[in-house]
Amino acid sequence: MKKYELTYIENGVCAPRGFKAAGIHCGFRKNIKKNDLSLIVSDVMCNAAAVFTQNKLKGAPVLVNREHLKDGKARAIICNSGNANTCAPGGLEIAYGTCRLTAEALGINENDVIVCSTGVIGSPIYLETFENGIPKVIKKLSYKGSNAAARGIMTTDKAVKEVAVSFKAGGKICRMGAIAKGSGMINPNMATMLCFITTDAAIDQEVLQSALSADIKDSFNQISIDGDTSTNDTVAIMANGLACNAPITGSGEDLEAFRAALRAISSYICHHIVKDGEGASKILKCMVSGAPNKDVARGVSLTVIQSDLVKTSVFGEDANWGRVLVAVGYSDKDFEVENIDIALAAGKSRVDVCKHSVACLFDEDMAKKILSQKEVHILIDLNQGDAGAIAYGCDMTLDYVRVNARYRT
Amino acid sequence: MKKYELTYIENGVCAPRGFKAAGIHCGFRKNIKKNDLSLIVSDVMCNAAAVFTQNKLKGAPVLVNREHLKDGKARAIICNSGNANTCAPGGLEIAYGTCRLTAEALGINENDVIVCSTGVIGSPIYLETFENGIPKVIKKLSYKGSNAAARGIMTTDKAVKEVAVSFKAGGKICRMGAIAKGSGMINPNMATMLCFITTDAAIDQEVLQSALSADIKDSFNQISIDGDTSTNDTVAIMANGLACNAPITGSGEDLEAFRAALRAISSYICHHIVKDGEGASKILKCMVSGAPNKDVARGVSLTVIQSDLVKTSVFGEDANWGRVLVAVGYSDKDFEVENIDIALAAGKSRVDVCKHSVACLFDEDMAKKILSQKEVHILIDLNQGDAGAIAYGCDMTLDYVRVNARYRT
Repeated sequence: MKKYELTYIENGVCAPRGFKAAGIHCGFRKNIKKNDLSLIVSDVMCNAAAVFTQNKLKGAPVLVNREHLKDGKARAIICNSGNANTCAPGGLEIAYGTCRLTAEALGINENDVIVCSTGVIGSPIYLETFENGIPKVIKKLSYKGSNAAARGIMTTDKAVKEVAVSFKAGGKICRMGAIAKGSGMINPNMATMLCFITTDAAIDQEVLQSALSADIKDSFNQISIDGDTSTNDTVAIMANGLACNAPITGSGEDLEAFRAALRAISSYICHHIVKDGEGASKILKCMVSGAPNKDVARGVSLTVIQSDLVKTSVFGEDANWGRVLVAVGYSDKDFEVENIDIALAAGKSRVDVCKHSVACLFDEDMAKKILSQKEVHILIDLNQGDAGAIAYGCDMTLDYVRVNARYRT
Repeated sequence: MKKYELTYIENGVCAPRGFKAAGIHCGFRKNIKKNDLSLIVSDVMCNAAAVFTQNKLKGAPVLVNREHLKDGKARAIICNSGNANTCAPGGLEIAYGTCRLTAEALGINENDVIVCSTGVIGSPIYLETFENGIPKVIKKLSYKGSNAAARGIMTTDKAVKEVAVSFKAGGKICRMGAIAKGSGMINPNMATMLCFITTDAAIDQEVLQSALSADIKDSFNQISIDGDTSTNDTVAIMANGLACNAPITGSGEDLEAFRAALRAISSYICHHIVKDGEGASKILKCMVSGAPNKDVARGVSLTVIQSDLVKTSVFGEDANWGRVLVAVGYSDKDFEVENIDIALAAGKSRVDVCKHSVACLFDEDMAKKILSQKEVHILIDLNQGDAGAIAYGCDMTLDYVRVNARYRT
């Protein structure tokens, strides 16, 4: 991808013109008074696009959003945390009801509302809590409300995930911002991955959807905390056009600039999701090169990043690279395994541990030093083509087991 | 499967007539003087069959065994532990050399030798160690040597895995025995799953192979410790015919009796492998019923048993059943998710936690009591057919992370 000029700016989802946001505590969380209801609203109608979980079991909000986004339009995103609307009695009615209540209070159409929900699965969830909270969160809406909204969607997250950039398209400065949550892409019950993106760029709806769908293949679909795919994963984007750029359509420089901004946003969010992975002490990136095609590169890097044995040895700072090669071998993609090189790297240090699928003599002290860093890279060259991909994960620690052993009780 | 009369007997792989075994320490393990070389030999030629790892990357011994078993015949199995022959420089020559040395010393044909190897991947392994050890292990061969051989193939295993049964086929008493190792079906570097089975039943080679291939679908392929598939997994069986039964061919009662014996052996070994899973504190069995076909039932049960989140909540004795339903949902099989029942059970206690994919009110104290037992069952009824399957696993504990964080160092 060519480099496009990007500037990181403040204000998250409120950085683009015409987006207000808010987050409040309204009672989904009974025990702690943390924010648990968030709202993002655009001053004008947006082209909107989204991608959802591939779990066969889908949270009620996912089903509602699919319907509401059929026309490619939206104006608001409402999201609660602390209690997921999945497998809850009457869940679908509650999801529709949430949209209706939000729309009525904002004076917009209910099918222009996107609804999300995250937290424990199977606990009863009540429309009354929304009825009580929605007027309050609307009162708090402001052009500076991104951070409060970001806090309102967190569950086990320890860090707020918020980012914005400005970029040029169609001769104008455009802005794009996001908030997200997830202590794992994939932590059902508690850490569903949600990311809400706003932009004031004018962009054709179909182009917006295809840009988002393309981007997630190398961003959100390439991160893994624990291999469990949530029922509620959602990445949604709203583009309101208030930057007044010449609308981005089809191919061209403007679309590329937009895609570069989207990649900057998604990379930032992905990096911060794995950094905040439950119990994680290190970021792990697996960079595959020399693959026969992109699909193999993505699959192999993701398989390595998901291996419990790779993750525990990185936690233990043990250069047990045989586990990496084994994980490469059980990836379900089709490629040759006879000529694989593996190296470990961190910062400017690098040590080759395997050449042509055979052990190298290597400096154990150097390897240990690399594995003791906060961000560790596993470099894999399949030596059979030109395609590459990166997967993002974290180590598996004693704290991961502690966090997950007694989350619900 | 109809019930066939089976009696559990002593002596493992030496229970069938005409099988000697031995295990010695010969130096693959440098630091501990535990057995690290094992040999099983039949007095006469055997029909033999085997199944191997599905990892694309295969240990050198797997490649050699495939060649040696082309004729369906074998007389001996030699196996070292402490150092796997995978990705080792000159690995293939060493595997061939091991067979040659064993064959020469026993006065048999080298392609009648099956060779296996388990331990750390990538450490150099030397033919000299075999050259030194093989005469010694042959000297120790005895009709009572099964236990020593079972100990010689252990790595992180805490318990010896050895079993034998007698059964009737072709009007004669036949015997079948096995030794195995594995702290996981699937723990590369350290806990490759190996199982060596002997029988004195006379059985056609093709029937033997197909009985073994069918059996593993519901036994060894349905166990999981950590989802990592080793490069060396091997289940091999040798049948020497010394029970003098009318040879088992094609279908019929005798084949069914043989298959029942094989299932008894493989179930016992699988149960003991998951019980001995690294760091495991509980056995977990997931029993799926109401599936549209066997493939869906196997896939769903295995997906649940592999979920880190299910495993950590069982460790934490937290009835977080939403995680079970989520894992069912991301199984890659094709079925409906709208009408799923889930229950937790142990001994005679049972509690229903989900009906028709919606939360039940349930007795939390009873659920906690069930989850505190040493063997926990997760019962899933998909309510869309008659097929069922069971998968065998264990919980994920703090000790799992501890064991795997610093195994190599």
